Amino acid sequence: MEIRRIALQIEYNGSAYAGWQRQKNALSIQEVLENVLSCLCNEGISLTGASRTDAGVHARGQVAHFETTCSIPGDRFAYALNTLLPPDIRVLHSRDAAPDFHARFQAKGKVYSYRFLNAPHNSALLFPYVWHIPGTLDTDRMQKSLPALVGTHDFSSFMAAGNQSKTTVRTIYHTELQKEGQVLLFRIYGNGFLYNMVRIIAGSLVYIGLGKESPDLFSRAYESHSRILLGPTAPPQGLCLEKIYYETVPWEQTGYFEGEQ
Amino acid sequence: MEIRRIALQIEYNGSAYAGWQRQKNALSIQEVLENVLSCLCNEGISLTGASRTDAGVHARGQVAHFETTCSIPGDRFAYALNTLLPPDIRVLHSRDAAPDFHARFQAKGKVYSYRFLNAPHNSALLFPYVWHIPGTLDTDRMQKSLPALVGTHDFSSFMAAGNQSKTTVRTIYHTELQKEGQVLLFRIYGNGFLYNMVRIIAGSLVYIGLGKESPDLFSRAYESHSRILLGPTAPPQGLCLEKIYYETVPWEQTGYFEGEQ
Repeated sequence: MEIRRIALQIEYNGSAYAGWQRQKNALSIQEVLENVLSCLCNEGISLTGASRTDAGVHARGQVAHFETTCSIPGDRFAYALNTLLPPDIRVLHSRDAAPDFHARFQAKGKVYSYRFLNAPHNSALLFPYVWHIPGTLDTDRMQKSLPALVGTHDFSSFMAAGNQSKTTVRTIYHTELQKEGQVLLFRIYGNGFLYNMVRIIAGSLVYIGLGKESPDLFSRAYESHSRILLGPTAPPQGLCLEKIYYETVPWEQTGYFEGEQ
Repeated sequence: MEIRRIALQIEYNGSAYAGWQRQKNALSIQEVLENVLSCLCNEGISLTGASRTDAGVHARGQVAHFETTCSIPGDRFAYALNTLLPPDIRVLHSRDAAPDFHARFQAKGKVYSYRFLNAPHNSALLFPYVWHIPGTLDTDRMQKSLPALVGTHDFSSFMAAGNQSKTTVRTIYHTELQKEGQVLLFRIYGNGFLYNMVRIIAGSLVYIGLGKESPDLFSRAYESHSRILLGPTAPPQGLCLEKIYYETVPWEQTGYFEGEQ
């Protein structure tokens, strides 16, 4: 039997899950997907995700791959899986991938977003997707702090205990901060991120916006090599894994991610 | 003891509730609010809402009033209530109102929105707030149908059984249809709406967009005086009560709704 490699693009609401990665005693997104895939393919399926998102973190562009001997056409997996999955997990695309395609190791870049709700009261509709900040955020101060994040830096001050990466050097390509009504949307593009790095940046941005820290905070943090200088780790529900970039065929050829960002 | 009248602006996610109006054997938004208000004021509170939204329908701008003898400052009710309410119900504003203020009878106009998700797959993040339409919607056809809705018409064809209004004549001031990524956002401004009227219009718009009905559907429906010509009643989760307009003091003076729409 021919072994095929299938790639998936996955959107999920992380609110009800203990994160992406399968673990004992708690339901993960990986486990739900593997169970449904194993049922569909009538064989045990093991899924490799590009990013191990934490409990409560959302994704619009998680990518994962698996191997199977089943004969379902590549593009039909999305439709078949969505009839079996709970509504808070959706497979947006599915496709046959190259035999050596690896969702995690071949990822060239990632985009995360973080949403702040800057309003006197939280929102009954948006609360699962935002961090509610009642105090007034000075967005000019926040904007001033952002250029220091761009470039290749040692982000060792920007990670939580439990980081498993060999190196703490990462390259940030671009950041942006946009106001959409009462929602402040932060986006960060990089070649990779350390454990809790985006949430530590988001927490620091709030401290800068509230005037508790100066806009040169990130520059000072690089020099300090210490987590202590930066703001708090922002809560998970504001964070969303938006997109993962690959150079490899077939991702680039298919226009998989076109129309996004 | 002085009897005061307090007005509230309320946002809610209708997913978990049997609609606005209090009823037996099912939890309503009115009941949750009345229970919390009665606890806060230490007296039985009866709340009058502007619109009786159906089960599963959302609101960003529901308005309601109540009478109380308690001494909490008008603008503090929102903060006090939000500490006691579930996160899917938020009081966005609260204020002392004129003794004759009536949320329902003094409403001069309302804005509803309806959101369609036009994409191959539903969204794990947006599904509680949209109607997923997998087939391609021709938005030009839909746009063409909209001018016929504007003006003063007998909307008797546009209502579900159970409508309790004395007259079926309503005035629509304005409609708009905007594309925001894969979300198609329909807004309708009117002096009032019959039972299920916006959802019947939304269902008809989908039939027009899919090519099952022609863009002159609404004109033909007025003449027919029959529900049968129009499209299906769209599901509740796409509908949101956005805003209610009042002429009365203090609503106009306070800028209650400024920055909205």
